[in-house]
Amino acid sequence: MRQDNKKPFKERILEASRSNRSKIVLAIDVHGGTVDEVAHQAMDLVEKTRKSICSVKFGRQTVLSLGPEKSFDLLQKIGGYGLTRIIDDKLNDIDETNGAITRIYQQLGFDALTVNPFAGWKGGLDTTFRFAHEHFMGVIALVYMSHPGAAEGYGQRVLRSSSGEPRPQFEVFAEKAVEWNADGAVVGATRPNIVRRVKEILDYRVPIFSPGVGAQGGEISRALRAGTDYFIVGRSIARAENPGAVAKELARISVPDN
Amino acid sequence: MRQDNKKPFKERILEASRSNRSKIVLAIDVHGGTVDEVAHQAMDLVEKTRKSICSVKFGRQTVLSLGPEKSFDLLQKIGGYGLTRIIDDKLNDIDETNGAITRIYQQLGFDALTVNPFAGWKGGLDTTFRFAHEHFMGVIALVYMSHPGAAEGYGQRVLRSSSGEPRPQFEVFAEKAVEWNADGAVVGATRPNIVRRVKEILDYRVPIFSPGVGAQGGEISRALRAGTDYFIVGRSIARAENPGAVAKELARISVPDN
Repeated sequence: MRQDNKKPFKERILEASRSNRSKIVLAIDVHGGTVDEVAHQAMDLVEKTRKSICSVKFGRQTVLSLGPEKSFDLLQKIGGYGLTRIIDDKLNDIDETNGAITRIYQQLGFDALTVNPFAGWKGGLDTTFRFAHEHFMGVIALVYMSHPGAAEGYGQRVLRSSSGEPRPQFEVFAEKAVEWNADGAVVGATRPNIVRRVKEILDYRVPIFSPGVGAQGGEISRALRAGTDYFIVGRSIARAENPGAVAKELARISVPDN
Repeated sequence: MRQDNKKPFKERILEASRSNRSKIVLAIDVHGGTVDEVAHQAMDLVEKTRKSICSVKFGRQTVLSLGPEKSFDLLQKIGGYGLTRIIDDKLNDIDETNGAITRIYQQLGFDALTVNPFAGWKGGLDTTFRFAHEHFMGVIALVYMSHPGAAEGYGQRVLRSSSGEPRPQFEVFAEKAVEWNADGAVVGATRPNIVRRVKEILDYRVPIFSPGVGAQGGEISRALRAGTDYFIVGRSIARAENPGAVAKELARISVPDN
């Protein structure tokens, strides 16, 4: 099954997930070495896992190391396997820059990108959402990241009005994800209580993507019960002796009726 | 004067600024077209303005369009002119990713990068500050951006403790810039009152970089009085009929005793 780019990203990743019976998004964070070495590492990982994943997520270090031409070639091959392709940009710039970067990613072959809602809408992320949705690209909003320091920003309490009660930043971000018609929300698997709270806000309108499984200590079945829709897994697969077997096992856990 | 990479970034940009009698940082946001066209546009702009600027700031779209090899070549030439080179990354990821991206930029030849303090310290920006300072690279923290939507995040009021008073987010970021030993703080020239307030927090320990002059409506002399140290100018120069003359005029205004 090849990717049909005339369908919304949310539908395409769901189809790939059903087809491969997996909710695993493979994170490819390779860099260091020549362009050909990096490309080979990335593609080798995809080849070994592609039947047990529903999507591939490139870190920016991967695209920076590969350059535009090699990235394009790789992304074409990955799309040919019926997998969606996400660039984990964490975009947070002004409109002109956001628009330019989003367009470049679209031309490279990405199906979705991540953004930080902290950048705000007007003159900020508005151009990215508009351009992306016109081109059937998905926009995935960060809601709560997986590292300890995430508490400083995503966990802080904010006042939305002079009279209102203070509220956690991540709840405000989850509401923006719904309001902005985002195609996904990132919440670290390391914080299942937050996944649960975010799920209440998002309901089933915006799927939850959770990094932090494995190397960062999260646990798939706990996050699944809390409301995670897709799991972003990098090091636990990439650094395994047998990446294919690990991906297959994680896929099995991620779809309990497998 | 070539760049001496064994001095801290803050000293190097100050030297370039004194040498060229300019506080103008040229923003290069070119993309669209072949790699050679983008490289030519970028270098043409540098050649026309290099005696009236103290630094060059690349947008990520420029690096994404150029790819690693061409970026390296361009940055070498720019460094040869005694200009510091900033990548406007707005980095806001987990430590492993931040570290990898920072290392790539250092290898490409950048002297400094921008980060979003929202990402937090532990397991977040800690690796970037450590790696950058070990390699005499500067880290410039976003404190308040120049677009309207920036008010949503940078302008929001946050509670730092259960008993404390709510405070503006940008004040918290300015304090982090001091605490983390940042080499610069970004505050939009469109908000001179905020530049003034941030200057009180930073004192003279962390220089202020202000985008938003010209195309975005800010004004150099007003921001200068408020406390801006360096002005980031892109479109007003790049889209001028005579970029060299505009850069020269802006340099003159930016150093009033010129």
